[in-house]
Amino acid sequence: MEKLECVFCAKTFPLDIFFPFCPECGEPLLVPRTKKRRSFHTERKLSVEIFKDFLPLPKIDPALSLGEGDTPLLELDNFMARYRLPRVLAKNETVNPTSSFKDRGSVVAVQKAVSLGIKTIGTISTGNMAGSTAAYAAKAGLRSVIFVKEDTSREKILAAGIYGPILVKVKGDYGRLFRKSFEIGRRHGIYFMNSVDPFRIEGYKTTGYEVFLQLGAQAPECIFVPVSAGGHLIGLMRAFLDLRDKGLIRKMPVFVGVQAKGCSPLARAFSSVKTSFTRFPNPHTIAHAISNPNPPGGNIVLKMLRENKGMLIAVSDAEITKAQKLLAEREGIFCDPASATVLAGVFRLAKKRIFKDRDRIVLVITGSGLKTIEDLDVARIDYHEAAIDGLEKMLDSVLR
Amino acid sequence: MEKLECVFCAKTFPLDIFFPFCPECGEPLLVPRTKKRRSFHTERKLSVEIFKDFLPLPKIDPALSLGEGDTPLLELDNFMARYRLPRVLAKNETVNPTSSFKDRGSVVAVQKAVSLGIKTIGTISTGNMAGSTAAYAAKAGLRSVIFVKEDTSREKILAAGIYGPILVKVKGDYGRLFRKSFEIGRRHGIYFMNSVDPFRIEGYKTTGYEVFLQLGAQAPECIFVPVSAGGHLIGLMRAFLDLRDKGLIRKMPVFVGVQAKGCSPLARAFSSVKTSFTRFPNPHTIAHAISNPNPPGGNIVLKMLRENKGMLIAVSDAEITKAQKLLAEREGIFCDPASATVLAGVFRLAKKRIFKDRDRIVLVITGSGLKTIEDLDVARIDYHEAAIDGLEKMLDSVLR
Repeated sequence: MEKLECVFCAKTFPLDIFFPFCPECGEPLLVPRTKKRRSFHTERKLSVEIFKDFLPLPKIDPALSLGEGDTPLLELDNFMARYRLPRVLAKNETVNPTSSFKDRGSVVAVQKAVSLGIKTIGTISTGNMAGSTAAYAAKAGLRSVIFVKEDTSREKILAAGIYGPILVKVKGDYGRLFRKSFEIGRRHGIYFMNSVDPFRIEGYKTTGYEVFLQLGAQAPECIFVPVSAGGHLIGLMRAFLDLRDKGLIRKMPVFVGVQAKGCSPLARAFSSVKTSFTRFPNPHTIAHAISNPNPPGGNIVLKMLRENKGMLIAVSDAEITKAQKLLAEREGIFCDPASATVLAGVFRLAKKRIFKDRDRIVLVITGSGLKTIEDLDVARIDYHEAAIDGLEKMLDSVLR
Repeated sequence: MEKLECVFCAKTFPLDIFFPFCPECGEPLLVPRTKKRRSFHTERKLSVEIFKDFLPLPKIDPALSLGEGDTPLLELDNFMARYRLPRVLAKNETVNPTSSFKDRGSVVAVQKAVSLGIKTIGTISTGNMAGSTAAYAAKAGLRSVIFVKEDTSREKILAAGIYGPILVKVKGDYGRLFRKSFEIGRRHGIYFMNSVDPFRIEGYKTTGYEVFLQLGAQAPECIFVPVSAGGHLIGLMRAFLDLRDKGLIRKMPVFVGVQAKGCSPLARAFSSVKTSFTRFPNPHTIAHAISNPNPPGGNIVLKMLRENKGMLIAVSDAEITKAQKLLAEREGIFCDPASATVLAGVFRLAKKRIFKDRDRIVLVITGSGLKTIEDLDVARIDYHEAAIDGLEKMLDSVLR
């Protein structure tokens, strides 16, 4: 019988796909870590096949994949030169099939759903997870139920709705909806693969293994990740714990979780040395994708970061907006505001002279700027106007 | 001295990067094909490195790459089962760094620009090429000048403007602007890497080599590609001509170029057995990315398709819209209307019983639906509304 583990109670419980939370403390359950012998299958093509030994799936069905993962790790040479930073690399997750890192989690959770004979999957989302879950359901021939917030923009509705899910705009508190979704799921046989779903989290590990391989079988010294519900950071840290257990690395990277100041329940708890966070009042930030005032994986994140000498910081909307523009203008990467927090975080820690010259710093760029284009201020994007006959004169003045 | 070739006049001319057109007939010049020994360097990571022997570059600088290429070739199992099609595969170019196939051309043209000591590059575009050119210029530390049409949407301006180019909305005829750009380029030292730039076209060849390798070193029987200016199709065909010259394949795939009925100058010329096209009057289609009434590579496309037993067809906006939705709903791929023409084309030819049971049909999906989201009709995307307390009742009725 498959089991899940509570890292707080140090106990395992039988897998209940409709409510993977600890019956004793209520925290999210995770897939138990194992010490069994495992290898990378680098001769394979798909990320889920290469890392299958590290995923909790009896077998991999390539037909359920959209070709997620295997994303570039780009040297940000221009930044390094200009801002005297150590070696900074961007793990560009925006080139996943639905333009965010969520696809790595969706593909594993959907494989699990199919193996369990589940016919309908669901999620609650403000954006990226809605599109990702609906797309993978479409590929797998499953039905999907997507709950979005009442104020979700037309663009985000369309970007998920195109895949044909049952899409519901829900009025009411998001935290309550999160709990309600599992009740509904159990009664209707819908597997709600929400933000801290244990199988989704296992999928995020593949990013960590890829970074390790892309750096020539070495761990970077430091990894920056935006933090919302916490699932992504938990998955990334578990990847490097796996690598350490296997003896492939000696030292864990320093993980730096980054939140937006306008919604930073975890950064706040971390800086006040608390082991559990409290709900963040009146969240307000341009980084909508990580604006979660009550992150379900928050306490696990705090515990894991403490155990592994990580950090949690918060950056302002002004720093985020500046970083987003800089990443596009200097390095050709157009990310969403949530992703830009990591670059803002690097600038902030660089000022404090925290990095060593030979450090390798990896920024996980989680989602594409194309999905948040309505948040870009057109007034900040310069453009000119001209008729063909006046074009050269106009250009003369600009180019001079 | 580097030379370019006119396939109509069968002559070569010294490379003039500021105006790569035949001084005699005015048609676009191409990089001469060579019979020299060349290999795939599959041990390398970047697409431009793996296929460097086939690219007209003295050396490859990986720092100018954004990790383009190496895109998935996805089996469209759900379609095959439902519509009784032979094996259909989608080459998903939407997962490129700026979400379209243009990146494969931009990376090669930018490498060329840098090798020639050029400091400013430019392009004319209605969308995808603007973003791609501006992003690669940013990465290379070059200035970029982007001319867009007067009526370009705010979303498209933002998606290119974020990279910091000199962006100009130009009033006037697009064909005249195309010619004017080269005059301006020569006088100001700006390399305008427009749609049929010979180095851009060489970059598109990498898609063809990848498809060949992904099919286990075999050519598919049929390749469908959307056709606008013609550069993409020319590049893809040249890839398979290279493979035939090397003795790696015996038979060329059948290339099917697809246009939108509302702007189909080449499909029209092809069906009336003409060797040159005439300008298409009053273009109007939802597939904006391929709405080019006067495609500069059009006559080369007609010649190459005739020589290699290809086809050119046109599909209606209704067929395009239906195909776009189907590809998302059944296969989890969200493409733009221009890309959806290829699936519409397959349905059309399938009705005519043109395919054999064992054919492998590759659809080149050229650009992401996220960039044309304003073209999606929100009325066609169903969604429901509910309060948390009414959610279950609402779902009951939908799921039943």
